[in-house]
Amino acid sequence: MLDDAALDTILRTARTHFTWTGKPILDEQLHELYDLAKFGPTSANCSPARFVFLRTHQARERLLPALSSGNVAKTMAAAVTVIVAYDPNFFDRLPYLFPHADARSWFASNAALAEETALRNGTLQGGYLIIAARAMGIDTGPMSGFDREIVDREFFAANGWKSNFLINLGEGDPSALFPRTPRLDFDEACLML
Amino acid sequence: MLDDAALDTILRTARTHFTWTGKPILDEQLHELYDLAKFGPTSANCSPARFVFLRTHQARERLLPALSSGNVAKTMAAAVTVIVAYDPNFFDRLPYLFPHADARSWFASNAALAEETALRNGTLQGGYLIIAARAMGIDTGPMSGFDREIVDREFFAANGWKSNFLINLGEGDPSALFPRTPRLDFDEACLML
Repeated sequence: MLDDAALDTILRTARTHFTWTGKPILDEQLHELYDLAKFGPTSANCSPARFVFLRTHQARERLLPALSSGNVAKTMAAAVTVIVAYDPNFFDRLPYLFPHADARSWFASNAALAEETALRNGTLQGGYLIIAARAMGIDTGPMSGFDREIVDREFFAANGWKSNFLINLGEGDPSALFPRTPRLDFDEACLML
Repeated sequence: MLDDAALDTILRTARTHFTWTGKPILDEQLHELYDLAKFGPTSANCSPARFVFLRTHQARERLLPALSSGNVAKTMAAAVTVIVAYDPNFFDRLPYLFPHADARSWFASNAALAEETALRNGTLQGGYLIIAARAMGIDTGPMSGFDREIVDREFFAANGWKSNFLINLGEGDPSALFPRTPRLDFDEACLML
């Protein structure tokens, strides 16, 4: 069992940040981040998520036409913005990722199953990336307020990946946070059978 | 930053389990599990996930007609099986969950956005539940090999929730594990811009 400080760091007191101190994130930290998040479980180890790390001001300017207005300033001020995407053809890597069975054929022959699997597991992997960043002491600001089609045209015209959501990374300024919003009680969100 | 043992516990050496020792999980552990996972971030704090904890043999027998054959034995042997579901009408709780703005209207007037938001954020919350369980020393076995429509008819005819995926919980038997499957290298899954 993790100790209280670790549980606080990954979930209990961690917060979504939108004001950043300007402290940079090194490229080797992004490698370490992926090398943590990649171990999270996916269905048949399908690993559909793809991550685009926008490190420079110029790279993030390419996002601007897609962002909802409330997401512009915090994105431009973050150290790095991650486009959490997925590869719709993720199943082409299954002979390597899941050698026990012909898992490629399950998806290559069923476009609806492939799309559902890419979205569900690519999203899970984005969640692992959020937790992994927090575990490394990096603050996060996930966002879904943007136009996915604009992002896909701008960044993925060549490789065919699809955007899912965005995560700002950096050192957050805790003094800018509002009080935490409430969560649903156990009895509102859970059933015991 | 979490120490190596904690990173191993939540991601690096944690494994998906399918053979269980039979050690039970107490109801108070399920409460503690939800009370950790609930703090993970969702878009506008929308918190669409709903969790159904199937603790008894009888409750899990109701799942059987929906399970793919490979998922039957491990599910019946787990201490608890969780149906990770979402409430399509999650937005009705937004005046409580996100009091800063009229977020309910963003979704109540846009069924496609509501569905996309429920699926993405409900899936993220399922990922937080996997990590939270591991952080508590509970082993996990997530599964998507089942018929969602059958589960929805059997469990959610009254409340309208929708199933997303399943997670077995318990104490896994590490001696039953196969060697770990590979993951994609950084350069296969990530771009640096």
